[in-house]
Amino acid sequence: MESLDAPVAHTPGSHTKALALTTPVLNNDFSPVSPLSEADRERILAAVDTAFDAQVRFLSDLVRCVSLRGQEAEVQALVEAALLERGYDVDRQMIDTALIGQHPAFSPATVSYEDSWNVIGIHSPAAVQGRSLILNAHVDIVPAGDPKRWQYPPFQPTRDGEWLYGRGSGDMKAGLSAAIFALDAIRAAGLELTAPVQIHSVVEEEITGNGAAMALVSNKVADAVLIPEPTDEKLVRANSGVIKFAITVHGTPAHPREVSGGVSALDAAVRLIDRLRQLETRWNEERTTKPFFDDVDNPAALTIGTINGGEWIASVPSCCRFEGRIGFYPGDDPQERVKEFEAFVATAAAGDPLLQRCPTPIVEWVGVVHAGYTLAPGSEAEAVLSKAHATANSPDAPPLQAYVMACYLDAAVYSVHAGIPSLVYGPIAENIHAIDERVSLPSLRRVTKAIALFAASWCGVRTVRDALQISAAGLGT
Amino acid sequence: MESLDAPVAHTPGSHTKALALTTPVLNNDFSPVSPLSEADRERILAAVDTAFDAQVRFLSDLVRCVSLRGQEAEVQALVEAALLERGYDVDRQMIDTALIGQHPAFSPATVSYEDSWNVIGIHSPAAVQGRSLILNAHVDIVPAGDPKRWQYPPFQPTRDGEWLYGRGSGDMKAGLSAAIFALDAIRAAGLELTAPVQIHSVVEEEITGNGAAMALVSNKVADAVLIPEPTDEKLVRANSGVIKFAITVHGTPAHPREVSGGVSALDAAVRLIDRLRQLETRWNEERTTKPFFDDVDNPAALTIGTINGGEWIASVPSCCRFEGRIGFYPGDDPQERVKEFEAFVATAAAGDPLLQRCPTPIVEWVGVVHAGYTLAPGSEAEAVLSKAHATANSPDAPPLQAYVMACYLDAAVYSVHAGIPSLVYGPIAENIHAIDERVSLPSLRRVTKAIALFAASWCGVRTVRDALQISAAGLGT
Repeated sequence: MESLDAPVAHTPGSHTKALALTTPVLNNDFSPVSPLSEADRERILAAVDTAFDAQVRFLSDLVRCVSLRGQEAEVQALVEAALLERGYDVDRQMIDTALIGQHPAFSPATVSYEDSWNVIGIHSPAAVQGRSLILNAHVDIVPAGDPKRWQYPPFQPTRDGEWLYGRGSGDMKAGLSAAIFALDAIRAAGLELTAPVQIHSVVEEEITGNGAAMALVSNKVADAVLIPEPTDEKLVRANSGVIKFAITVHGTPAHPREVSGGVSALDAAVRLIDRLRQLETRWNEERTTKPFFDDVDNPAALTIGTINGGEWIASVPSCCRFEGRIGFYPGDDPQERVKEFEAFVATAAAGDPLLQRCPTPIVEWVGVVHAGYTLAPGSEAEAVLSKAHATANSPDAPPLQAYVMACYLDAAVYSVHAGIPSLVYGPIAENIHAIDERVSLPSLRRVTKAIALFAASWCGVRTVRDALQISAAGLGT
Repeated sequence: MESLDAPVAHTPGSHTKALALTTPVLNNDFSPVSPLSEADRERILAAVDTAFDAQVRFLSDLVRCVSLRGQEAEVQALVEAALLERGYDVDRQMIDTALIGQHPAFSPATVSYEDSWNVIGIHSPAAVQGRSLILNAHVDIVPAGDPKRWQYPPFQPTRDGEWLYGRGSGDMKAGLSAAIFALDAIRAAGLELTAPVQIHSVVEEEITGNGAAMALVSNKVADAVLIPEPTDEKLVRANSGVIKFAITVHGTPAHPREVSGGVSALDAAVRLIDRLRQLETRWNEERTTKPFFDDVDNPAALTIGTINGGEWIASVPSCCRFEGRIGFYPGDDPQERVKEFEAFVATAAAGDPLLQRCPTPIVEWVGVVHAGYTLAPGSEAEAVLSKAHATANSPDAPPLQAYVMACYLDAAVYSVHAGIPSLVYGPIAENIHAIDERVSLPSLRRVTKAIALFAASWCGVRTVRDALQISAAGLGT
């Protein structure tokens, strides 16, 4: 993350290109919102503090759930119960690939979604005034690797000083706890949001983005979305488009006594990976013409995440398959990048003496195929968040910084396909997707406060007493 | 195989070095054997022809058994039944690692042998005259890879012209059929061998050699062993020692957005494989000082057979493990080669900038760790086989050729640890350990004849009528 930390200039003008928009255009004719009073603000901040131990316990419960892909049911049951307990209208939303399959937000699904669903919690005030909001967080996590290499067992969340350790603690169960407890704090302060607020607890962010796509296509939209991914308390100005591939290389197996008659699929795969580095370099070089990306170290970031090859210790491998991802820029059509990638593989294979002796490598698309997004500087949503961030922090803290995150984010779904201002802003975390993942608890507390203040300011608040009167008078429906 | 095909000069003198000998010294004070009469010879050859269709059916039954490592029970039951039906004393011999574990023939066992056993069939004549013989064949096979790449399904043996296709057809179920049907032909010719003959149907040749080791350590020895591996009707003069390793490289996993903070275990593994090529080159260069090996193309033959790395498509891999084998020369102590290999890996890792960022790679020994052997030219066993080979072939066929086979063979167990003259000689086969493995049926027929004539000449024969008289007179026991 350090290499991408450089703040990005807030140049005016939007670089977001909506590739497709099949969802309804949002109503931007906002009702006026009164500024948050100092007393309300203080009550909200105090409520976050009061509940923070409970928030960490809830976060720990989330981390204990091994919510790997296809195993999200337990954690979603926990989220569902938490939302029901708080009085939200809760929907267990299955991922309907027939419905979303034709939408450009959809990425190839290679597994059944039978056991994977979103949990959507909605609170609608009796009378609507102000701007609606989605707080989105994904519950799926990536594998922990060898637990023996962890300082603490990855699924036994452990507090050590100011950190909470555990797989998913930072990416992004802390953010989910922040979303839920930020809204709690508003209510604990005796306030109700005056515009609808949704909590989207989604699946599939780590692989396809189809959880967020399902929420979007089922028309769960709002005037802004905030996603508390671990961003070190910074705001994401832009992310990269990402495509995730699997490549299978077939060789010619042989006995070790006649190696020269065979072609090792492993050797051929390594050769192809070497060649793909040239594509990474080429795509990286495009950054000089791409807004916000010119200072980013490795925006294309070709990573090979898995490799599996060979059948027998003493045979020349007949087959080798590797999976990976590569990035590109907001505004790029991911389908064009897919074509460019496939053409590169074919050309590279045709031009390599070893790969020439193999069938053409087979490229499959097995994860996200999605465009990047840009958060246009100067938006009202960013201004409100900046103020909330400043208020939640100490007076001498630097103002909210924005930066580029060269990876897929569910914010792209809401931003690219529905034009929703999408704010990715969350706590300090370390070692995400790595060993000893951990989230900073003081940072989580600050971020929870900032989100609470943002929601209150964006949506508007009224006192609960007023809310009850409106409800009793039947004005809201 | 073609690269190793060059005939090797039959220089006199033995280069076999018995590394250890814990089994009893053999009695080389042979009883005299009468030469095989022309009539007996012709009857034996005719009997092979008569039974050849049945032999191919039996071979096909063997090939239908998917006798991968740990799955040999079915094929061994078939062999056991065939030997019992023929009147052999049959022993189902479990692999007792406690017994063989201390013997230098033993190689690291990484699996349970609960479902893997040898089948040993013994025929002992009533009166012994002549030299005893072991016919050894392994029933274990290597994986077939993707069956869709095969012309015929790998476990549905298919005859196409002069070839029988199927995984294990050549390596070495054809050889096993040759052993059984060669001895059948002798009996069908009205003859009985005058010395004990054993059939060793063993497991584990493809990975550890512990099947043959078990046979040896349990004192199943003889005055010669013949192993009908697929050698294109040539005799193996020497093989290579082999060690089989697994290497695990740990990296530093990371998220694609912060690649520079991670170290890809895959990249590090590929770097280490590259370095190991230098060891292969160095060991190959030693061939100039090694008898019989100076013309061999790639005697050390480092092959990486399997690779598995990474946990998630969009994480920098934390771990990568690959398995392979490397060869060396007869007379080399395999334990010294193990030390040399381990030291090389440690030094290579310490000297590489990427590997320096990883923990020292972990080397495990997961298969054969065994010396090579040399068949000393000029042995009586070789002379008898040369004559049998010539007789089984057309008069204008070239004489028996000898060559080096740069791979592990169970012959090394009998040769190195018990000094038993070990003849590896079998049919023409193609694509062993590869796709479309096949064995030549005319070649199998010739080899079966040659083995029958060899056994008859080596052990000696008497007519069954004489044998019955001896048995009735109680002279044999």
